[in-house]
Order: sequence, then structure tokens, then C-alpha cells
Amino acid sequence: MNAAEGLVRTLVGAGIEVCFTNPGTSEMHFVAALDRVAGMRSILGLFEGVVSGAADGYGRMAERPAATLLHLGPGLANGIANFHNAKKARTPIVSLVGNHALSHLRFDAPLSADVEAIARSVSAWVRSARDPAELPSDGAAAVAAALAPPGGIATLVVPADVAWGEAEGPAPELPVRKRETVATDSVRDAARALRSGEPAVVLMTGAALRERPLAAAGRIARATGARLFCNTFNARLSRGAGRVAVPTLPYFAEAASEALRGVLHLVLVGAGPPVAFFAYPGRPSALTPEGCSVHALASPAQDAEAALEALQDELGARSAPPELAELRRPDAPHGALTAGAIGASLAALLPEGAIVVDEAITGSPALQGPTATAAPHDWLFLTGGAIGQGLPVATGAAVACPGRKVVCLEGDGSAMYTLQSLWTQAREGLDVTTVILANRSYAILQVELARMGFRDPGPRARDMLGIARPALDFVRLAEGMGVRARRATSAEDLHRELATALALPGPRLIEAVIQG
Amino acid sequence: MNAAEGLVRTLVGAGIEVCFTNPGTSEMHFVAALDRVAGMRSILGLFEGVVSGAADGYGRMAERPAATLLHLGPGLANGIANFHNAKKARTPIVSLVGNHALSHLRFDAPLSADVEAIARSVSAWVRSARDPAELPSDGAAAVAAALAPPGGIATLVVPADVAWGEAEGPAPELPVRKRETVATDSVRDAARALRSGEPAVVLMTGAALRERPLAAAGRIARATGARLFCNTFNARLSRGAGRVAVPTLPYFAEAASEALRGVLHLVLVGAGPPVAFFAYPGRPSALTPEGCSVHALASPAQDAEAALEALQDELGARSAPPELAELRRPDAPHGALTAGAIGASLAALLPEGAIVVDEAITGSPALQGPTATAAPHDWLFLTGGAIGQGLPVATGAAVACPGRKVVCLEGDGSAMYTLQSLWTQAREGLDVTTVILANRSYAILQVELARMGFRDPGPRARDMLGIARPALDFVRLAEGMGVRARRATSAEDLHRELATALALPGPRLIEAVIQG
Repeated sequence: MNAAEGLVRTLVGAGIEVCFTNPGTSEMHFVAALDRVAGMRSILGLFEGVVSGAADGYGRMAERPAATLLHLGPGLANGIANFHNAKKARTPIVSLVGNHALSHLRFDAPLSADVEAIARSVSAWVRSARDPAELPSDGAAAVAAALAPPGGIATLVVPADVAWGEAEGPAPELPVRKRETVATDSVRDAARALRSGEPAVVLMTGAALRERPLAAAGRIARATGARLFCNTFNARLSRGAGRVAVPTLPYFAEAASEALRGVLHLVLVGAGPPVAFFAYPGRPSALTPEGCSVHALASPAQDAEAALEALQDELGARSAPPELAELRRPDAPHGALTAGAIGASLAALLPEGAIVVDEAITGSPALQGPTATAAPHDWLFLTGGAIGQGLPVATGAAVACPGRKVVCLEGDGSAMYTLQSLWTQAREGLDVTTVILANRSYAILQVELARMGFRDPGPRARDMLGIARPALDFVRLAEGMGVRARRATSAEDLHRELATALALPGPRLIEAVIQG
Repeated sequence: MNAAEGLVRTLVGAGIEVCFTNPGTSEMHFVAALDRVAGMRSILGLFEGVVSGAADGYGRMAERPAATLLHLGPGLANGIANFHNAKKARTPIVSLVGNHALSHLRFDAPLSADVEAIARSVSAWVRSARDPAELPSDGAAAVAAALAPPGGIATLVVPADVAWGEAEGPAPELPVRKRETVATDSVRDAARALRSGEPAVVLMTGAALRERPLAAAGRIARATGARLFCNTFNARLSRGAGRVAVPTLPYFAEAASEALRGVLHLVLVGAGPPVAFFAYPGRPSALTPEGCSVHALASPAQDAEAALEALQDELGARSAPPELAELRRPDAPHGALTAGAIGASLAALLPEGAIVVDEAITGSPALQGPTATAAPHDWLFLTGGAIGQGLPVATGAAVACPGRKVVCLEGDGSAMYTLQSLWTQAREGLDVTTVILANRSYAILQVELARMGFRDPGPRARDMLGIARPALDFVRLAEGMGVRARRATSAEDLHRELATALALPGPRLIEAVIQG
């Protein structure tokens, strides 16, 4: 068989069932191989940022990699922003990138570019295939590399003549490195800190944020009085009724510093010491309070759940009852359509097991607040700050979890980076409800401009941060890609449209025209 | 003044009047500076690929750089595909990329990425600013680097704390290196080859493709019998009535080889030896016929016009009358809406001085043929093969040439990469008529799959190359971004809508539903 087919069979054998793709000429043998091999679902994106973001959403929910298939350096470059978010989420992805035939590279044809250099910026592992006979085992190595803790992007660059050469057949699956257990000393050190009675915070991200490890964290908090936080942006957080509620560390550095004021012990589980998202003149980047000692309980590559349970046991807290969120369904909101009103509607209507993808940016706090006591759900964040992540991640999450409703909360500015996702949602009939929070500006940048000291921006500065001229019509944009859409201009509108969208299967979009 | 303002004033002083931008927090001081400095027009794009492509279109037409302002590694990455096309077009661009404050970089905040590594893949020159006092002179160096022959992308990475630091004021403009004159020996060598009477081709690209150098090439052809070709893809080609018509070398390698069969002398003006766009099993990448001698008359950095005129003079052809295209306006086409019908309508209706941006891919030959004898116009090509170039380049060309009609001929698949360009066209009131050739497939890939030997692709392969499920509605998509749009399903429809769009100012879109 040709090497492309050997590679596809290898991936299927290693449990990879989905390939998000936007192929080109150099990937034609791979495309043809997908015809001949059962077990791999190919999902087309109209733009590479959709492909990379969908693989991120898929990996966060499925906990195993999807493959992506992109075309040469420029195609890969179009996917980099969402690969960047996936890298920060530590999502396992097997990224296949076609390249010119090895024999063709020296001619510097128009599409020639340094594929490996572009891949390196986001990848945990990069290999350029050189030999068709080895391509299947290159693929097996890529799967193992993507899954090696803490998880990452494994990029396999496949020259066209390697893909069309001959291979003997698929390569066997390789063993995957397990997550390390944390050292007993780290557990004891954290326990000592928490037993001291001094103000303490447990800051978590990554695998710590699932129901079981959160319960352990809740017992630790109950037993010691330590406060729990998670990072501002996390790959996936289990929350809602019946779960231990963990607030996110606030986005703005001043507020984060305020939240950590007076803390003398910071226990880190999968997280690094807190830092500001951006630097500002005259303000510190590091947010660990002065005099606070940092206790690294578990690194991102270590087993967070086992670490938290060991700490719970070390503290004798195994039977402490964690504080669990109780279900609270607010009344339907009335009047002006604000982010808070959307948050209330969501909290009232969110179905159990929903997956919420949050790229609402300035709108996020008002959405996260009320939903902390909604039906149990998973919340996926913008992990790397590269906007245009929400719609693709929602797309991939829906592919990974066909029985669960996906709700994508999306800023209008951010939506426009990867709006093509809607077409893939329509094509695949994915169960995604998208709510566009249309404030018609890059509202976060208006805030940031003021925070930088420019309180009264002139007309040209305001112009660059406003997107109301002309107003985007998301109803037409969605319908243009085959997704049903409605506009809401009041809280009542939004509640009604959201109830409809959540009750019916398939992709729908609501443009929520936000006031204030 | 702060260094950001010193940089903006330096750029304005060096003749840079336009900044295409999609800024973020790390660029707020630059945004604020744009308020305070007259003479720089800031144009917002909703996606970075719009920004980089618009700068390409602007630079091709204005023959001086626009600035671009992008946000950190992921923002730059989103612009790379069209920067790649600009690199292959040798378009001068000053690319400013904000970065985290130098003091913030070591904290690996979520948006941290290797900006320089990403920039290097497309840039002729990269510098990371380190000192606010030096930022204005860094900017002056970037302008000179962008304009250094043959022209390219000069990337200046600006950490936030460098932008907000103090500078004394703008830096003076730096001298720009001139294009080299070709050596007399090269002219004599080419003249000897063309005088031999043996079959010869002059292959041109770049600056050779403007009216004056083409006239010299036409005299050379008339005097010697040499045939003229330009590359398949060129930054800008002057064509139409009154110009020397130069066919493009065919895209597919077999056809290009056929066109060059028997040629014994190949004279290169700005072009390299011809190569296939992609490699195919068992076929050569290099297309220079066996036994053909190659005469490099002018490199891309050399003065092509002077070279062609020197060659013309060396051949004693100064008074040879070049063969000029005569104006031929075909009758309005009837019946089925094919690419050929669109070509006929264009040839009939194209206004004098129009700028045609061609990303019609499989549709291009049928559009290029009939318009060779249309009113005089410039034709801009997809130089680097990274699709999603047409709409942004049209946007930038319209900014550069406000008195000229821009016509963008765009495939439906390609349009979806950077459709956000339409919003910028609406916002700026740009005089662009976009014709979407909607064949509802990646037609070029269907051709390529067959050329790779897969004559009867299965359902999954076909599925990945078709975009009819669901059909994109470009009328709604355009209207959603504030651009008037109509759908044409017959040649008559198209002719009528094109006549309307070309007669009225401002952005309009026609979705041409192509048959066959």
C-alpha cells in the first residue's frame, strides 16, 4: 500500500477516529487513502483556523487526539493561532502537514515555505518524514508524542513523495508515557503549609478541574480553610450543581492581586505562579504576593487527581464534606439585554451535561457568575488569548460529544476571525447553539486603552476599537453558511430564542445585541 | 514624546500614509499615537489575513509600502499566508508587530509566542526593538529595508515597554538602495542568443511587466522572432488595448512544457527558470527543455526596464514597432453562466484603468483570455499560491488607487478564507466589484486528484473537495458585512449585474453561480 494509506491505518489503529482537514494538492494521496480506510471521519473546514480550533475542542472533550491535515506552510500558518490556544490548553493533537515532494523543495516553487519553523512555535514534537517505509511508524510516534503528559501538538510534516511512496502496512501503536505521581515530599510540604492556619490559596488548572479532583480540593478547603482558585483561563472546568465551585482568578492584574492579598501560602496544582496577562507601565507582572511562599504540588505533567487525593489524605480530610454548588435556576430576565441577562437565562436554561465554550471576553464574568449554580456542565476557556477560538472549539467539542448540547458564548469581534466554523456545524449537523454578544466594539481594547492611561481617546483611536461601522448582521452571516439564526434585542427575546435553540437539535445562532 | 509616537512620525516622514491594522492590548500606545499624528490613515481589518493582504495590494499598486500593525505571535500568524503571497510578489511592506513588554516576556503569559521565528518565514528583514530611544530609527531602517530591491517585508517587533518609553522625536528618512543596472555582458549574451535564429523565449515577471518595459520586449520579439511569456503568477501585469500582450506560462506542468517545447534559448527577466507548481509522481519539476540554454538577463533586484531597453538597443530594435493589442469588446454573452461568459462580459465592460485581482483559480484562464484585448488595465495574480489573497489585495489596491475601479475575480472556496475583507470595503467605501465564481467545490483539487492518478474518487474523497453541502449564500454573507450583493445564474444576469456594479461607485458583490 502507499505510505499515506499506511499512515491513515496506523492512526486508526491508535484510536484516532476524526481528522479535521483543509487539504491541498500535496495531500491528495492522504485524501484518497481516507476513502479506502474505514474508521476515520473526515471533517472539512473552510479555513485552517477552524480545523486547528476544532481539534482543540475535540481533544479537550474526548481526551484523545484528533488528527488535523493542513496544506504546506501557509495552510499551517492559518491554523497557528488556534494551535497556540491548544498548546496552552495542553490538548493532544496529531497535526499532519503536507509539504512539497522532497525532490521539489529545491526549486523554491511559489508555495515553498519553512513548514517546520512555523510548526515549531506551537508543537511539543515536530518530525519531517523522509522515507515512505517509515511513515507509518512516524505516525505512531506522533500519536505517542501528542499523548505524552501533559499533552501537546505533535506535528508530522509529510512531503508529497513520501506520502505516495510505498510502505509495508500500518505500524503498531506505541506505548504512551503515564503521568508521573507527585513526590511524597511535595504532598507533605503542601500539607504543612495548609495546616499552618496562615492564609492559603490552592491555585489549580488542567486535569485538577474535573469533578473528582475538585471534590478532593473541596475537602482540603473544608478541612484547612484554604481558598480555592483556578486559573483565569482553563482548558476545561467541571462546574454547576453538585460540583465544588472554584472561582477563576480575575483577569485584570489589580483584581487578581486583590484576590490574593495577604495570602502566605500558594499551593499550585497544574498551574504556574500567577502572572498578569499583559504588562502595564509601572505595574508588576508577577502576581504572587510579597512574602507568600509557593508550594508546587503538581506540575502540568503530573497526576493532579492523585496529588489532590494524596494531599486530602495527608490532611486527614478524606471524610470532610466538600461544599457543593446547589442548583439555582434564576427567573427569566426582563428588560435590557445585557451580558448579565444572558447569564441569568443561561443559568435557568442550561441543560445537564452541556458544554459551554466561552469567548465572550468582556462579557465572560457576567456569564460565569450565575451559571456556577446551573445544571452540571463543562466550561471551556480561551486558553491562549488568541481570539477566534470559540466557534471552532465548539465545533470540535460537538464532534467529540454527540449526546451533549454545546453552547458557544462568543464576542462579535472574536467571532469574525473564524466564523467559517458555522458552515462546518451546518454540514455536520452539530448540536451547537452560538450566542453572539454583539456590543459592536473590541470592548476589551477600549478598557485596555483606558488602563494604559488614555482616558479620552480621539476619534481615530476610537475608530480602531469600534466595529459598529458598518454593523455586522450575524443573522445573515449565519444563514449564508446554512445555520438558522435570530436576533435578540431584549432580555425576553434572548430568553425565548435561547430556550428554543437549547430545546431543538442542530446548529443555531442568536445575535444578542448587547446594551451597556 | 513616547517612542510609539516617534515611530509613527518617522513612518509618515518616510512617506508611509496608510496603516492596515488589527491591534491588541500591546499596541495601545501605537493606537493612541495615531490619534496625535496627522498624515497616517488607519484602516481596520476584522482579521489579520485581511490586513496583510491589503498591504500587499496597496504596495503592488502604490509602489511604496503600507504599514501593518498586528498583535503578538498569534496575530502575526493569522497574517502569514498573505504575507507569504506578498513575499513572492516582492511587495514592500513595513510590518509592525506588537510584543509583550520586555520585562513581561520571561513570565510566559498566555499570549507569549516566538514572534521573530514566525516573522522570519516571510520577511526580508526582521528586527526586535530593544530601546525606546532607538525605536524611531528602527522604523526608518524598516522602511529602507522594505524598499531595498527587489522589495520585501520588513518586520519590526515592538515590545510594549519599548513603545511606551521615551524617544526624542522622529528619525530622518534613510536613503533607499537603487536597483542595480544589469551588466553589459548579460545584455550581449542575451542578444547573441536572440540573434541566433534558434527558437527563443523571453520569460518575464516583476517590474518587466509594466507598459514601457513590455513595449521594449515587444520590439525585441518583433526584431528577433522570440516569443514572450510571463510567469503564471505575477504581482502586476499591464495589459489590454495598446499594450504588448504577453501570455502567462500555463499552470499545469504538461501544458507549460508543451509551450516551451523545442526552445533553445530562454532569456530570463526578473524570473527564475520555470518550475512546476507542484510535483507529481514520475514527472520532472524543472520545466526548462533539455538542451535549452538559460540567459539570466536581469535578476529580481535589477532594473528590468533598463535591461529590456538595453537589449532592444543592442539588437538595433529601437524603432521596431511592437505588436500591440487592439481593443475588442465582445457582444454580451447569452445562456449558461460559465467562466468564459464572465470573461466575455468583463472584456466588454471593463473600464479603462481598472485593476483586476484574479483568484479565480480554475476559472482564471477563461477570464484572462478575452480580457487581453479589453480596455487597458492592470492584472494582479495569486503570487504565492496561499489562497484567500484576492479580496484583501483588492481592498488594498482600492485604497492605493481611489480613482480606479477594482474588480476582484474570486473562487468561492478561496473567498471563504478572508471574506472579512468585505467589511473593510464597506467601512472605507472602497470602489471594488467582487465577482464570486461559485462552482461550489475546490475544483482545482478535483483536477489535481485526477492528475495524481485517482480518476474515480470515492465518496469521502469527493466530500472533502466539494463545498456544496451546504451551499454558501454569498449574497447574505456580503450583506451581513454591509456590501450590496446580487446573485447571477445566467450569462444575461451576470452581464447586467456587472454593468451596474461597474457603473456605480462603492463595493458590490455578484455571486455568479457557475455551470460546468
